[in-house]
Amino acid sequence: MEPETSPPRLRIRIVFGEDEIMGPGKAELLERIGRCGSIAAAGREMNMSYKRAWSLIGTMNAMFSAPVVESTRGGAGGGGAVLTDRGRDVLALYRQFEADAAKAGSPRLDALSRMMTDMPGGK
Amino acid sequence: MEPETSPPRLRIRIVFGEDEIMGPGKAELLERIGRCGSIAAAGREMNMSYKRAWSLIGTMNAMFSAPVVESTRGGAGGGGAVLTDRGRDVLALYRQFEADAAKAGSPRLDALSRMMTDMPGGK
Repeated sequence: MEPETSPPRLRIRIVFGEDEIMGPGKAELLERIGRCGSIAAAGREMNMSYKRAWSLIGTMNAMFSAPVVESTRGGAGGGGAVLTDRGRDVLALYRQFEADAAKAGSPRLDALSRMMTDMPGGK
Repeated sequence: MEPETSPPRLRIRIVFGEDEIMGPGKAELLERIGRCGSIAAAGREMNMSYKRAWSLIGTMNAMFSAPVVESTRGGAGGGGAVLTDRGRDVLALYRQFEADAAKAGSPRLDALSRMMTDMPGGK
């Protein structure tokens, strides 16, 4: 009988060169900006300060060879932000990488899960 | 012509249940304990306090259904520590998971690398 457990989740940081990192926080921020159309609102949803959200976007805009987010100035609402094509590509590749990793590694993840104390399948 | 770049590295945290995490720091600590035969020495090599190293070992010993490290008391040197079979299995599975993930995801990693600013292949 299979144990009923939620599968382990992955938090993957991809480190390019010395210290350029693409990880779960940046991916979630991009995703939420795409949905909210606003860096401030996306940050709030993640309990992240406006300053921190802007800083992460700045890091990504410098890290990739084209900006991942563009702010749209002016308008009644004071402007918003949109994901660029590059931003959508980076996010999609990161999510696909996560999915590929989880799928390829699932036998190892299962084996590790069975070694945990509080898993129904553990012993 | 292929760009000459070192491949991206992965730092993967596997989150079991609510908040039980197996990640790169714990893996490295296990590896070094296996090599040094001492928690203190392994921690020092990682610039980790003795207290922190013991705390990580305690977390792992509680998280898995058998201890991953056993301390060997007594003797002239004041005792050391050894990886248990469980510790070796956990470490091996984690390293194999990393390798599986990197291999399966390598097309996505390459695509992301090509989008970086300072990669020779980027544009």
